[in-house]
Amino acid sequence: MTDQNDPIDFATDLIRRALEGQPDEETLAGLAELHPADLAEVFEQLDEDEQDQLIRLLDVPTTADLLEELDDDETLEAIEDLTPGRLADLLDEMEPDEAADILGDLPRAQAEVVLGQMEDADEVRPLLGYPDETAGGLMTTSFVALRRQTTAEQAIQFIREVSPTSDIPYYLYVVDRWQKLNGVIGFRELVIASPDTTMQEIMDPDVITVAVGVDQEEVARLMSRYSLAAIPVVDANERLVGVITHDDILEVIEEEATEDIYRLANVSDTELEPDSPLGEQVRGRLPWLFLNMLTALFASWVVSNFESLIGEIAILAAFQSVVAGLGGNSGSQNIVMVVRALALGRMDNKKIWEVLGRQVLVGLIQGLMVGSVVAAVITLLRGDYHLGLILLLAMTANMVVAAVVGTLVPLFLAKIGKDPAVASTILLTAATDSFGFFIFLTLASIFVRYFNF
Amino acid sequence: MTDQNDPIDFATDLIRRALEGQPDEETLAGLAELHPADLAEVFEQLDEDEQDQLIRLLDVPTTADLLEELDDDETLEAIEDLTPGRLADLLDEMEPDEAADILGDLPRAQAEVVLGQMEDADEVRPLLGYPDETAGGLMTTSFVALRRQTTAEQAIQFIREVSPTSDIPYYLYVVDRWQKLNGVIGFRELVIASPDTTMQEIMDPDVITVAVGVDQEEVARLMSRYSLAAIPVVDANERLVGVITHDDILEVIEEEATEDIYRLANVSDTELEPDSPLGEQVRGRLPWLFLNMLTALFASWVVSNFESLIGEIAILAAFQSVVAGLGGNSGSQNIVMVVRALALGRMDNKKIWEVLGRQVLVGLIQGLMVGSVVAAVITLLRGDYHLGLILLLAMTANMVVAAVVGTLVPLFLAKIGKDPAVASTILLTAATDSFGFFIFLTLASIFVRYFNF
Repeated sequence: MTDQNDPIDFATDLIRRALEGQPDEETLAGLAELHPADLAEVFEQLDEDEQDQLIRLLDVPTTADLLEELDDDETLEAIEDLTPGRLADLLDEMEPDEAADILGDLPRAQAEVVLGQMEDADEVRPLLGYPDETAGGLMTTSFVALRRQTTAEQAIQFIREVSPTSDIPYYLYVVDRWQKLNGVIGFRELVIASPDTTMQEIMDPDVITVAVGVDQEEVARLMSRYSLAAIPVVDANERLVGVITHDDILEVIEEEATEDIYRLANVSDTELEPDSPLGEQVRGRLPWLFLNMLTALFASWVVSNFESLIGEIAILAAFQSVVAGLGGNSGSQNIVMVVRALALGRMDNKKIWEVLGRQVLVGLIQGLMVGSVVAAVITLLRGDYHLGLILLLAMTANMVVAAVVGTLVPLFLAKIGKDPAVASTILLTAATDSFGFFIFLTLASIFVRYFNF
Repeated sequence: MTDQNDPIDFATDLIRRALEGQPDEETLAGLAELHPADLAEVFEQLDEDEQDQLIRLLDVPTTADLLEELDDDETLEAIEDLTPGRLADLLDEMEPDEAADILGDLPRAQAEVVLGQMEDADEVRPLLGYPDETAGGLMTTSFVALRRQTTAEQAIQFIREVSPTSDIPYYLYVVDRWQKLNGVIGFRELVIASPDTTMQEIMDPDVITVAVGVDQEEVARLMSRYSLAAIPVVDANERLVGVITHDDILEVIEEEATEDIYRLANVSDTELEPDSPLGEQVRGRLPWLFLNMLTALFASWVVSNFESLIGEIAILAAFQSVVAGLGGNSGSQNIVMVVRALALGRMDNKKIWEVLGRQVLVGLIQGLMVGSVVAAVITLLRGDYHLGLILLLAMTANMVVAAVVGTLVPLFLAKIGKDPAVASTILLTAATDSFGFFIFLTLASIFVRYFNF
């Protein structure tokens, strides 16, 4: 059932019915007038046959807009059956960075055939060499570069001629004859400048730039820090080679957040969604479970060393998991705070010992408080305070261990250049399970003779 | 030790030394020329006395820029000792939305005194009524609104006069006499328009707007979906009341991601950082551990029902945690995928059963595979396959339960209007621990007579 009040569903139904026969001009024109993001959502609701049918019916500009909005996988599927000529037309119509992304996903030979038939191949080709997750992979080559001595009047004339329709980023850039970046000008400054003002006079020479090979996370951090709508990308010789706009950065920030969340929960494939194909899900998740299995088996070996003690006092088996579980939970609170502080650039290297001290103190307090309540409950239920006391001691010790491991492991991973979110939680659980079982059962074996049950 | 190669540290050292005596004009002018984001970082490195000293020395525009970059807490601390007159001057210099944020954090009476001394109180006052996390709380009132019949020449003249220096958002808005929004114009269109073109001719009448009361997460989703550098905010009568810019949205997206990550790890205070004060840390973390304690005690009660079985075959205590732990881990993989799909608007309500089916299948496969390896290891070590077989069965069943709970709990929480990240993991662990112990020990009690050790 579809919800008739939802405009996307409504449009989808309309198209679906139209595709059963031969859609009239009016329906197609209506589709072309949808915002590309909405058209993409309608498109995603159609089944594969309907999608193929629709792609053949839409005009080039509308199809190009649509492809820019689809995910990489969906785009590849949608263009599968197109001729190289048609695909070349579509790519010519798209932003160079989007076109380069698609070409980069095609087999090398096929990409070359399509490039050969494109008019704007020169704009796209330089972008193909950059890895997806770097500044070079994010930037577009469609920007306006002016010279210092250009007047406002000339600049306006130039913009009229060169890019009458396309979206151009929010700033104008001033370069010298070697394309070296000299300054930046907001459109607002150009608007209010008198006609004979030169770019030199209104440009801001302090431009924040990013090098072409810089990781996308660092690009996002810079643009966020300095509230930039667009950032110029320069090569090793300070030459302007592209521009990255704020909308690309939103995607990066969402991607990076997804990556952190997934890795903290031991899902290694950031592209996974709840309805992803079975094979992908298993590939992205199972390896971590096997690693977790190893640490779990180690922890169970720790317990197995106390087999005779447990045989004697079986109730210990009921409480060992309370010690281990709460330690793990407390430590994961540490991990997320450190991982997040690292991701947002808020972790000051000089403060590590201060942070560690505070986290240990929090662990100690949490251990004492939760442990006391558990101890009180157990003492009331069992009529003997020894088991409760052991639980209090073991839980407190384990939460301190959790604080140390949960704070230092992500910091250490970051220090050696690894992602602090990867494997942190598994290492933490390995520590809190094994140590939790060990300390609890060791204390129990020491105090067993005082037990009164 | 500070790192002399880091420009922030270098500037901090310089200021610190200057503050020991009477800083000269040159040092202060140098500070004023730093980017406000960098100045804020320098400021944060100073101790409280130095900060107070510096605030008194900086001129009004520089201080205003600095305050715009500081966190809410830091801002409040920095302005603590200022006179209402000085504070009013600073707020007049700031963007209206930033000024409103600060006034909103002050005690009501103090805010009124300061407002009384402000020149631009009229711009700021309307913003005070909106909750921080809504469109109204994010928007600024400094935007340019023009009329349909205004010509390009008039518009440019207007911009020159009205806002010669301040930052204004990326678009111009066209309104009628009742401030009702009619259209939007990019600066680029204004630049290339001939002088006598009217706004009516170049405006885009299809404006994507957001209502003033809409939650910030929804605002972020809209701006991200439609790649907007700024979005106009309208009241119930479709009147233009403010504009939200892309940089505010970056912060929202980061905040929301932090919120999700923290809540998944049972930290309820999104503002917490690794070095936050002890009291705040305990308040934001301890309540969740107490909840977790309750579920852990319940799980230990489940185990306690098998006391005599464990007394007989103590090694069971070593393996019960493998079943419970791996179930929890597998289920948390489900939770993050669902929480993330919900956060990014990718969860299609119609697909719930398809998603559930797939997740259960993944759980089944993971349980069978990890369970088989565990079973093989145990069989080799113990020379009896019964315990291994029970582990295989219990682990598979627990991972299926984990898939169901891990998928449905966040979906259910979202359905009833709660945050799907809150408490999901605790409910999951409650299920996988209790059920994991129960199924493993129950199976063991059934098959105990076949055990060969």
